[in-house]
Amino acid sequence: MKEYFEGIKKIQYEGPKSTNPLAFKYYDPEKIVAGKPMKDHFRFAMSYWHTLTAMGADMFGEGTAKRPWAGKEGMELAKARAEAGFEFMSKLGIEYFCFHDIDIAPEGNSLEEKFANLDEISDYILDLMKQTGIKCLWGTTNAFSHPRFVHGASTSPNADVFAFAAAQVKKAIDITKKFGGENYVFWGGREGYETLLNTNTALEQDNYARFLQMAVDYAKKIGFTGQFLIEPKPKEPTKHQYDFDTMTVLGFLRKYNLQDHFKMNIEANHATLAGHTFQHELNMARINGVLGSIDANQGDMLLGWDTDQFPTNIYDAVLAMYEVLKNGGIAPGGFNFDAKVRRGSFEVEDLFIGYIVGMDTFARGLIIADRLLQDRVLESFIEERYASYNEGIGKDIVENKVGFEELTAYALKHDKIVNKSGRQELLEDRINQYIYTL
Amino acid sequence: MKEYFEGIKKIQYEGPKSTNPLAFKYYDPEKIVAGKPMKDHFRFAMSYWHTLTAMGADMFGEGTAKRPWAGKEGMELAKARAEAGFEFMSKLGIEYFCFHDIDIAPEGNSLEEKFANLDEISDYILDLMKQTGIKCLWGTTNAFSHPRFVHGASTSPNADVFAFAAAQVKKAIDITKKFGGENYVFWGGREGYETLLNTNTALEQDNYARFLQMAVDYAKKIGFTGQFLIEPKPKEPTKHQYDFDTMTVLGFLRKYNLQDHFKMNIEANHATLAGHTFQHELNMARINGVLGSIDANQGDMLLGWDTDQFPTNIYDAVLAMYEVLKNGGIAPGGFNFDAKVRRGSFEVEDLFIGYIVGMDTFARGLIIADRLLQDRVLESFIEERYASYNEGIGKDIVENKVGFEELTAYALKHDKIVNKSGRQELLEDRINQYIYTL
Amino acid sequence: MKEYFEGIKKIQYEGPKSTNPLAFKYYDPEKIVAGKPMKDHFRFAMSYWHTLTAMGADMFGEGTAKRPWAGKEGMELAKARAEAGFEFMSKLGIEYFCFHDIDIAPEGNSLEEKFANLDEISDYILDLMKQTGIKCLWGTTNAFSHPRFVHGASTSPNADVFAFAAAQVKKAIDITKKFGGENYVFWGGREGYETLLNTNTALEQDNYARFLQMAVDYAKKIGFTGQFLIEPKPKEPTKHQYDFDTMTVLGFLRKYNLQDHFKMNIEANHATLAGHTFQHELNMARINGVLGSIDANQGDMLLGWDTDQFPTNIYDAVLAMYEVLKNGGIAPGGFNFDAKVRRGSFEVEDLFIGYIVGMDTFARGLIIADRLLQDRVLESFIEERYASYNEGIGKDIVENKVGFEELTAYALKHDKIVNKSGRQELLEDRINQYIYTL
Amino acid sequence: MKEYFEGIKKIQYEGPKSTNPLAFKYYDPEKIVAGKPMKDHFRFAMSYWHTLTAMGADMFGEGTAKRPWAGKEGMELAKARAEAGFEFMSKLGIEYFCFHDIDIAPEGNSLEEKFANLDEISDYILDLMKQTGIKCLWGTTNAFSHPRFVHGASTSPNADVFAFAAAQVKKAIDITKKFGGENYVFWGGREGYETLLNTNTALEQDNYARFLQMAVDYAKKIGFTGQFLIEPKPKEPTKHQYDFDTMTVLGFLRKYNLQDHFKMNIEANHATLAGHTFQHELNMARINGVLGSIDANQGDMLLGWDTDQFPTNIYDAVLAMYEVLKNGGIAPGGFNFDAKVRRGSFEVEDLFIGYIVGMDTFARGLIIADRLLQDRVLESFIEERYASYNEGIGKDIVENKVGFEELTAYALKHDKIVNKSGRQELLEDRINQYIYTL
Repeated sequence: MKEYFEGIKKIQYEGPKSTNPLAFKYYDPEKIVAGKPMKDHFRFAMSYWHTLTAMGADMFGEGTAKRPWAGKEGMELAKARAEAGFEFMSKLGIEYFCFHDIDIAPEGNSLEEKFANLDEISDYILDLMKQTGIKCLWGTTNAFSHPRFVHGASTSPNADVFAFAAAQVKKAIDITKKFGGENYVFWGGREGYETLLNTNTALEQDNYARFLQMAVDYAKKIGFTGQFLIEPKPKEPTKHQYDFDTMTVLGFLRKYNLQDHFKMNIEANHATLAGHTFQHELNMARINGVLGSIDANQGDMLLGWDTDQFPTNIYDAVLAMYEVLKNGGIAPGGFNFDAKVRRGSFEVEDLFIGYIVGMDTFARGLIIADRLLQDRVLESFIEERYASYNEGIGKDIVENKVGFEELTAYALKHDKIVNKSGRQELLEDRINQYIYTL
Repeated sequence: MKEYFEGIKKIQYEGPKSTNPLAFKYYDPEKIVAGKPMKDHFRFAMSYWHTLTAMGADMFGEGTAKRPWAGKEGMELAKARAEAGFEFMSKLGIEYFCFHDIDIAPEGNSLEEKFANLDEISDYILDLMKQTGIKCLWGTTNAFSHPRFVHGASTSPNADVFAFAAAQVKKAIDITKKFGGENYVFWGGREGYETLLNTNTALEQDNYARFLQMAVDYAKKIGFTGQFLIEPKPKEPTKHQYDFDTMTVLGFLRKYNLQDHFKMNIEANHATLAGHTFQHELNMARINGVLGSIDANQGDMLLGWDTDQFPTNIYDAVLAMYEVLKNGGIAPGGFNFDAKVRRGSFEVEDLFIGYIVGMDTFARGLIIADRLLQDRVLESFIEERYASYNEGIGKDIVENKVGFEELTAYALKHDKIVNKSGRQELLEDRINQYIYTL
Repeated sequence: MKEYFEGIKKIQYEGPKSTNPLAFKYYDPEKIVAGKPMKDHFRFAMSYWHTLTAMGADMFGEGTAKRPWAGKEGMELAKARAEAGFEFMSKLGIEYFCFHDIDIAPEGNSLEEKFANLDEISDYILDLMKQTGIKCLWGTTNAFSHPRFVHGASTSPNADVFAFAAAQVKKAIDITKKFGGENYVFWGGREGYETLLNTNTALEQDNYARFLQMAVDYAKKIGFTGQFLIEPKPKEPTKHQYDFDTMTVLGFLRKYNLQDHFKMNIEANHATLAGHTFQHELNMARINGVLGSIDANQGDMLLGWDTDQFPTNIYDAVLAMYEVLKNGGIAPGGFNFDAKVRRGSFEVEDLFIGYIVGMDTFARGLIIADRLLQDRVLESFIEERYASYNEGIGKDIVENKVGFEELTAYALKHDKIVNKSGRQELLEDRINQYIYTL
Repeated sequence: MKEYFEGIKKIQYEGPKSTNPLAFKYYDPEKIVAGKPMKDHFRFAMSYWHTLTAMGADMFGEGTAKRPWAGKEGMELAKARAEAGFEFMSKLGIEYFCFHDIDIAPEGNSLEEKFANLDEISDYILDLMKQTGIKCLWGTTNAFSHPRFVHGASTSPNADVFAFAAAQVKKAIDITKKFGGENYVFWGGREGYETLLNTNTALEQDNYARFLQMAVDYAKKIGFTGQFLIEPKPKEPTKHQYDFDTMTVLGFLRKYNLQDHFKMNIEANHATLAGHTFQHELNMARINGVLGSIDANQGDMLLGWDTDQFPTNIYDAVLAMYEVLKNGGIAPGGFNFDAKVRRGSFEVEDLFIGYIVGMDTFARGLIIADRLLQDRVLESFIEERYASYNEGIGKDIVENKVGFEELTAYALKHDKIVNKSGRQELLEDRINQYIYTL
C-alpha cells in the first residue's frame, strides 16, 4: 500500500528527556499504571474529521494544511483518506477511530447515492480495520453542515428535515454496527435556536426526545448494543443549543424517561464555553453515573469559540484522569482527540506532533492522578472534611432520620459553630508538587 | 407615624409626556390590559434587602446611601426600616414585599435570641401589613452571609451547619406563614463549591436534596401552602453554584423526585451570568410548567458579576411580559425588584426613581407584549413555520406513529428539501415597530 | 441590463405604520434632520463582501444563501456580482459601497494576473458608478484569507509576505483612487499573534508601523487624498490582534508618530468583543479627534465571536448617533453595513430586509439623538454636574494654576465634601421616554 | 515584642520533597539563579491591605478571617497590625512591603487628623523597618473607598474631590519618601465612568493628566526619586476604567507627554479581566520599556471579577519570569502579592501558606524560565522564524530602504510564497517538558 506519511516512522516511547518531536516522552502504551496498561486507560481515538477531512480554514481564511491526499476527489479521495488515516493511527499506535458519515464518504446527489457511497466506503474501511486491528470507538452522523439542516435536524421546523435526519442516523447506526463500534454519539450541532422570536421550543424539545426514543427503539430492534452518548455544548454554531451541559441534558433525559439509555461524551472545550471547567463536567457526569466518553482537547479561555486545541495543559489532564480513575475507567468509551492543529501548524509533521503532545499530556496526567489517589492526597482531606456526617446528627441527616424540627432542637443547643479551613491554596500546591516531582 | 420620606408624595400616573421624575409615565395600576388591571399582572414587590438594608457598599468602597433611618441600631433600626419600608411601598402603590430573615431583625447573640428577635419584629410588621393592606409575596432565609456558612449551608461539610440552616429555614417558613406569604424562596448562595479539590459533590447534592425534602415535609405538616421556589444562579459568591440555571435545577429536582414541589424564581441578571438571556430562562421555565416568580432587574452584559440594576431595557421587558402572558400570568408569584440603585445614585429620591423606572419599563413591556399577542405577530409566523407537523409525515412524527425505518423510506422519496427563511431581521424589526409606535 | 432582483422594486419610505417588509418606516432620505437631509448624516454604504460575496457558511456548515448570480465563475461571476450590487444599491437608495480587492475580482494564478483582473473589473465597476452615480466610500485589501497570510501580512515573520502585502495595498490604494474613494481602510485581520511562544512582538509592531508609514508616503506621492482609517478589533481570527481598540491604536500611532495620518473605522461588534460598548469606542475616537467612519452592525452579547448582525438595537443607534452629531457628522466617512443576514435568512428578500432594518434603526436613532441634543437632556445635566470646574478652585485646576501644595491647603479647609447623585436610573429612563414617544 | 503568630517559626527551605505546609519547596532565597540570588530576582513584597487589613468579606458575606489583632481599634489596631506585619514578613523572609495610606492609619474625622495619624504611624513603622531591615517597595493612596470618591478622585465631577485627592497623594508621596519607598503607584479605582449618559470623558481625562503632571512636579520639587507606576485595570469597581490595559495607558501618557515619568505595575488578574494573558501585559510593557513592577496573583478565568488569588499556575509563572529575565530584572520594582487567601481559608496558617505557595510558584517559574533561556528553546526558534529580515528584501524593509513601489516590483517576481509552520503544539510541549523534568 502507498505510504502517505513518508519519512515518519512508527512513533516510539523515548522517555522524558527526549527532544525528538516525533517520540513519546510519557506515553508508554504497555506500561502498567493503576493495574493495567496505559493504553487501556485511554483507548485513544483518532477523529476522522479534524485529522483527515479538515484543511485549516477559519471564518476569515482558506485552508492552509498540506496533506498528501490533496488533489483527489470523490470516492478516490475518500479511500486515500482512509488509507492515510489507518497509516496515521498505526504509526501512532492509536487503536480506535471516530467518524461522522460525511467524513468517510462523499455526500452524493441523492440520499440513495449517499447510502451507496457509505456502503462502498465502509466495506473498504472494514478491510483496513481487519488488516490493522484498529477498531471503531464511535460513529455519528453530521446533521448540521448541509444547508438542509439550517434550522436544525430533529428540531427543524420542517418535518421533511426530521425524516431526513432520521434516515441519516439510522444509516450511521447501521455503519457503526457494521464496524463493531462500541458507542454511538449524538451531537446536536443545530439542535437549538437562533432567536426565540421564531421558535417553538416546546415542540422542538418534544421532537428531539421523540427522535432519541426512535434511536433507542431502532438500536434494540437491530441488536446494536453500543452505548448511546450525548455530547453537550452550550452554543456554536447555534446561538443556544439545547444540550447546554451535562446537568441540562440529564434534566432533559429524565423528563422524557430516556435517562437509562444515554451517557455523556464530555468535551473539554464545550465545558469551558458553558462556564464550567473540564473537571466539573466530568465530575457531574461521574456522580450521576453517566460518564461515557471524552472528547479530548482544550479551549482558549480568552476566546469565545470552540478552538479545539490539542490538550497541553497538565492541570486539566491530571484532574480529568483523577475523575476517570474514580469512575473505574472510561470503557466502553475512550479519549477521542476532537482536536485540530492550529491553522499555522499546517505541515504533516504538526499532525503527528499534535497527537503526540496530546497523548503525552494525558499519560503524564494519568501517572500523577494515580499517585495522588494512591497517596490519598485529596481523598484523605475530603474524608476528614466531611467526617461529621459519619456520626451523631450528621449520620442522622444522611440516614434521613431527622427533619426540621429535630434539627432545630439540635441547633438551639449547638449554635456556636466551629468550621475548619478549606485549605484551597495548600491543595493547589500539593497538585503542583506532584506535577513537578514525579 | 413618623414620615421618613418627607417631601415625596404618593407617586401618581401622569402619562408618557410627563417629565416629573417622581411620576409614572406608563404604569397605571388600575388600567385594564389583557383583561385585568395592570397591577394584577405584576404583583410588584419591594425587596427588603436592597431597599432598606443595603447602603451601597461594593468590594472597593463603603456605603454611600443617605437614608433617613441612619444612626439607629438593633431593634430600633429594624422597626424604623419597617416603618420606612411600608411608607415607601404605600407611596409607590406597591402591594407586596419580599424579605430574608436577617433583613427584618438583628442577628442576636444566639439562635434563641435570633428567633426571639424575629418573633418581635414579625408582630410589628404584621401590624403594619394590616394597617396598609400590603402583603408578603415571599420570604426566605439568609444562609450565606454569616461566617458559619462559609462552606455552604445544606451543602456544608459540617453537619452542625446543616442543622443550623435547617433551623433557620424552619423559622423563616414559620414567619412567612405568619405573614400569609404566598411563596417561599430558596436561593443557594453558597450551595456549590469553590474548588473540586476539597469537595464531595455527590454527598453535597444528596444533602441538598435531603434538605429540600425536609422543607416539603415541614410545610405539609404545618399546613404552609405557599409555593416553594428555587432561584437559579450560576456563580457568585460561590465559584460554582449547584443551581446553575433552570434546566440544571430541573434535572436535579427530577433526580430526587422533588419536581412537583418547586417552581423557579427567575432573575434576569442570573440568567445572563449563566450565558442565557432573561427570556430564555423564562421560556424554559414556562414550557416545563415551573415559571413561578420573577426577580426583576438587569445586569451589565460587559461586567461579570451580579450588578442587580433597575430594569430599563425595553426589549427585555417586552419579551419577559410575552412569556408571562403566555404563561397565563405570574400569580401566585410576582415581580420582586431584586434591584439596587447604583452606588452613585445615593439620594433618597433615587430609590423612588429606581422603582418608578422599573415599574414603567415593565408596564410598557406589558402593553407592547399584549398588542403583539393580540396581533399574533410572532404567533402567526411560528404557527406557519411549524405547519408541517400538522399533517402528513410531520403529524405521524408528533403522534409517535413512525420510527427510523418508516422515516427512512419517506426520506428516500423526499430528499430534495425546501426550507423557508427564519426571517430573524424582519421579526426583530417588528418588535421595534411595536416599541416605537404604541 | 439584466435585473437580478426581480419582483423587488425601489424601496420607498412608507412611514412608521407600514407593515410592508420592503419599505422604509423611518428612513426618509431627503427629510431634513438637524439641518441636513437624513442621507447626508449617514452616507450609507453597501459592504461588497457580506452582500455579494459571502454565502452564509459558518464553521459548522456550508453556505445557504440563494443568490441570483449562483452558478457563474471567475470574471463572469465578478461582473454579475457588480451588476447585482449596483442594482441592489439603486433599489435601496444607497449611494456608497465599500470593498476589498478580492471581493471584486478573482485572485488569479499570479500577482500579475491578480492585478490584471483588478484593472479589468475596476473599469467595469467605474462604468457602473458613472451610470448610477454611486460612489466609493472606501477600499481596502484582503491580506488575511489566503494561506500566504497565515502568520500575518505586514507582521508576518516572512519578509516575502510583507512585500506581497505591500504590493496588494499599493494596488488597492490605486483602485480606490481610481474610484474616487473617500477613505482607505486598514483592518489587520492577522496582524497579531497566536502564541507568544513563537512571536517577536517588538519586530512585528515595528514592521507594522513601517508598513503604515509606507502607505502614507505612497498616498502622498500619488496624490491620494482619501482619509486613512484603522479598524480596531481585539481578536478573531488571530488570538490577539495588535489593533485591540481605539485607545490601543492611538497609543501605537503616537509611538511611531503616525497619529496625524489615521482615523478610526469603528465597528460595533468589535467594540463589544473588546469589552466596550459601541458608544464607548465612538466616544473615545471623538474626544481624540479620530472618529473617521463606522462599520454598522451589532454583535450578540452572549456569543464570543463576530456575529456581524444587522443593527436593530435602538439604544445603540441612539447613542451612536448622539456621538456622531456631537462629532459634527461622520463625513468623509459613512455608515458601512459590515453586516450579514443570519444563515437562516437565506432568501434574497432577507438581504433587502437586513439593510432596510438597519437603515431604519439608525434613522430612528438619528431623530431621537437630535431631539435629545435639541432639548439638551444630557447636556444640561452634564454641564451642571461639572460646574465646579467653571469657578474657584476648579477653574484654577483646569487652568493649571495650582499644584499639590495649593490643593492641599484648600482641601484642609474644605474636607467636608458634598457630592450629588449621578442619577443613572433617571437618565436611562429619559432615553426610554424619547425612544417611545417621538 | 509580642509574638502574633505563635507556633509558626521562620519558614525554611526544605526542598521539593517536603510535605511540610510551612516550608519552602523551591524558594531558596540565597540560591544563585541566572547570576544572582533568587530573592533579588523577585524583591517579594507583602501587600498591607490583603494581609493585615482585609478580613475575608465578599459581596454576599461578612469577614471570616481569624486574626490575632482582632478586637483592637483605632491607632492601637494600626500598631498591632504593623507589628504583626513585620513579624509576618520576617518569618517569611520577605524584605519589602506595599501600602495604601488607609491600610496603615485610621481615617480620622478630618483631613488634618488623617495626616496626623499618618505621621504618628509612619514613625512607628519606620522604627520597625529599622529594626528588621525590611524596606518599602511602594506606597499609594486609597482614593476610591470613602464615599467622597463615589464619582472618582482626579476624575470626579466635583473639584473639591480633586483637591482632596491631591492632598491625599501629596501626603502619601511624603510618607513613601519618608520610608525610602522605591516606587509610588497610581491605581485609578474609580477613575473611569459608570455611564456615558452623565459623563464628560474629555474633561475627566484632561483632569486625570493634570493630576499626574502635578504629581510629577511635586516629586521633583521634594526630591522624591522613586519610580512612578500606573496599574492598569479595565473595570471593577467602575464599569469602565480609563487605565484599561498597558497599551491604553501608554496611549494616554503619550497624548499628554507624560510617557517619560511613568512605568506599569502589571497585575495578572487585571490582565485577564482585560481579555489578555498575564504574559501579554508583561510583554507589551517590556517591549515599550515600561515594565516597572508586578502585582503577583491570579484570577479565575471563569469568573468575571478580580479574585486576587495566590498564584499557583506554573505556566503563568514560567512565562512571567521569562519576560522579567528578558527585561533584565524587575528592580526597582518587585513582586507584590496583591493576593488574598480564599474566604474559606480563614485560619492564620492559610496566610502563611498563601505566601509560601506563591513564592514557590514563582521560584520554580524562575528556575524553568532561566533554563529555557539558557537553552535558547524559544529564542532559537524565533530567531530562525524571523531570519528573512536579516538579509535581502527583509533587511531593506527593517532598514527603511524600500517603499511600496520597490516592494511591488519585488513581489511580482516572488509571488510563490513558502511559509513555515509556527509549531505551536510543539512549543507548548517543550514548555511542559521543562516544567516536568527540571
